Amino acid sequence: MKSRAAVAFKAGEPLQLVEIDVEEPKAKEVMVKILYTSVCHTDAFTLSGNDPEGVFPAVLGHEGGGVVVSVGEGVTSVKPGDHVIPLYTAECGECKFCLSGKTNLCSAVRETQGKGLMTDGTTRFSYNGEPVYHYMGTSTFSEYTVVNEVSLAKVDEDAPLDKVCLLGCGVTTGMGAVKNTAKVEEGAVAAVFGVGAIGLAVVQGLVKANASRIIVIDLNEDKFELAKKMGATDFINPSKFDKPIQEVIVEMTDGGVDYSFECIGNVEVMRSALECCHKGWGESIILGVAGAGKEISTRPFQLVTGRVWRGSAFGGVKGRTELPGMVKDFMNGDIDLDSFITHHLAFQEINEAFELLHKGESIRTILTYGE
Amino acid sequence: MKSRAAVAFKAGEPLQLVEIDVEEPKAKEVMVKILYTSVCHTDAFTLSGNDPEGVFPAVLGHEGGGVVVSVGEGVTSVKPGDHVIPLYTAECGECKFCLSGKTNLCSAVRETQGKGLMTDGTTRFSYNGEPVYHYMGTSTFSEYTVVNEVSLAKVDEDAPLDKVCLLGCGVTTGMGAVKNTAKVEEGAVAAVFGVGAIGLAVVQGLVKANASRIIVIDLNEDKFELAKKMGATDFINPSKFDKPIQEVIVEMTDGGVDYSFECIGNVEVMRSALECCHKGWGESIILGVAGAGKEISTRPFQLVTGRVWRGSAFGGVKGRTELPGMVKDFMNGDIDLDSFITHHLAFQEINEAFELLHKGESIRTILTYGE
Repeated sequence: MKSRAAVAFKAGEPLQLVEIDVEEPKAKEVMVKILYTSVCHTDAFTLSGNDPEGVFPAVLGHEGGGVVVSVGEGVTSVKPGDHVIPLYTAECGECKFCLSGKTNLCSAVRETQGKGLMTDGTTRFSYNGEPVYHYMGTSTFSEYTVVNEVSLAKVDEDAPLDKVCLLGCGVTTGMGAVKNTAKVEEGAVAAVFGVGAIGLAVVQGLVKANASRIIVIDLNEDKFELAKKMGATDFINPSKFDKPIQEVIVEMTDGGVDYSFECIGNVEVMRSALECCHKGWGESIILGVAGAGKEISTRPFQLVTGRVWRGSAFGGVKGRTELPGMVKDFMNGDIDLDSFITHHLAFQEINEAFELLHKGESIRTILTYGE
Repeated sequence: MKSRAAVAFKAGEPLQLVEIDVEEPKAKEVMVKILYTSVCHTDAFTLSGNDPEGVFPAVLGHEGGGVVVSVGEGVTSVKPGDHVIPLYTAECGECKFCLSGKTNLCSAVRETQGKGLMTDGTTRFSYNGEPVYHYMGTSTFSEYTVVNEVSLAKVDEDAPLDKVCLLGCGVTTGMGAVKNTAKVEEGAVAAVFGVGAIGLAVVQGLVKANASRIIVIDLNEDKFELAKKMGATDFINPSKFDKPIQEVIVEMTDGGVDYSFECIGNVEVMRSALECCHKGWGESIILGVAGAGKEISTRPFQLVTGRVWRGSAFGGVKGRTELPGMVKDFMNGDIDLDSFITHHLAFQEINEAFELLHKGESIRTILTYGE
């Protein structure tokens, strides 16, 4: 099958729009026709070459929505025509992790997924006869993609895929981190570092959790308007202060916040996020992805005096179990996705979408494959 | 009131046995005649000069038991003759922390306690007319000491103070960290780094929690015998391996432990303790006190993939509320204190007790003031 795709041939270079070959799905695999995809900072991070797991050439993209085209042997949970959202965090329901009841980090396809391969150790993509790697088990930057059955959430056919595709990463990550990871309770005071898509989704999650105060921190004040519209109550630009921002936050909250969320991927900010937490109970959740080799640090006294340091991947959400319900919540008006969509472009304008993201001008750009 | 005391006049030097003057308790204060005290690594840490909060000259000591001699104005919860255990973690029951239901870190006397003073900013100890500082709000290395009412747990008069004095620090810290901080569930796999008093208390707590596997890690293999007697199941000497000990533990536990406890105060060990935790849910609890300026580090990926980094002070135990019950548990045979007591000495032999601790030859030495 020929497919339009935007291939990352080399780190640090723009994607190239080419026609690739996509093989039919093998056992337990599914071919999906992607209708819409957006671009997330993690795609940009991998394209930059800073991702230690990044392999090239690859078809990036992990926030998309599409329709099942064909299924491999033994696939039972989806059939051609089903509407699906690809999941970079699979859910097999059978591994030690899925059965633990404690995490969403399924191990079923993890090892090969991290190498850009399907579970048989090969790739379904090729260009001029040379293999092209998969990415995050999703590769939504190809009109036709092949993913594992366990990496697909089947969603309501009436849901607009050009919106619910956002549940494939950022919105779910942020809202899930509030609900599943932090388990924020009513009345809590929270700080959100970085108000891109994930930070805004955290804000939305905090509003739903009835947090009493939602402090957002960002160097780009242009982002505060949308954050305010979504329910943030306090706005801090760290460049306006000449002391560590954690001290500013501790002072303005009479001892610190109950929960903080790092939505950037900067290890210095991760430290600030921990240290602005209230002694005795404050919990800090890392959502951002840091550069290769970067480390977080703090004095252990910060933890001994009751702060807790956590992280969250895909918001602790089990995609196949929970995403259909989140899609319903969106359709019922309980989840706002429209506010995240700042731009629409055609798929072939994908490099422009990366540019908008780099410049901080977009939250999410929806790319449409079209005819 | 004249009192025998072992005073720390200078960092790095042995304690000096002298007769100090102890003033009568002021409002909300209590004078206690200490009958027994033991020596903990934190005393040695402060005496070494590495404790940034250490002030000299001071009466150290924070693991003791005694009898109330007199009470200051407004004291209602204890009266002369009551048996008490001094608490370095006070419990006022009225501050933001006590009322939170989330922490045992009462703020009532914290600020002055950290400076070696009573809440009015003065000290009740003096030597040759010069002030001598308090320590941790307890100062059990003086036969007569003055502590805040909120820093005293009243315990059963039938309980042997020469044993239950150990509940003033190490045993409570270790057992509480398992129960209150980690909330270890039945069947859990756990690693305990360092098997001094606190580590052994963690082992005891894990046995009570019905952990399925209790792995202890220590460079001193002499400590393994007692750890085994108390219920540890696996014994690791890191010096016997030429790879990071976290890798060894992850391999031997099929992915890592559910809970780990750092009971040493070494920031490198704290990192190992975190990184030997199971992806997805493993939690590491820091109990040890690190040297001034030391920092913990790890890659944030460790947290994003589901590990949790916590700390615990006094095992999360609210002393006045919970210690009387722990004393009862000891009397009913549900808590073993005897195994911790490796040596008995007279109070005037206190420097010898420090020596035994330094050499790793003692777990706890009970010092008796005698007549």
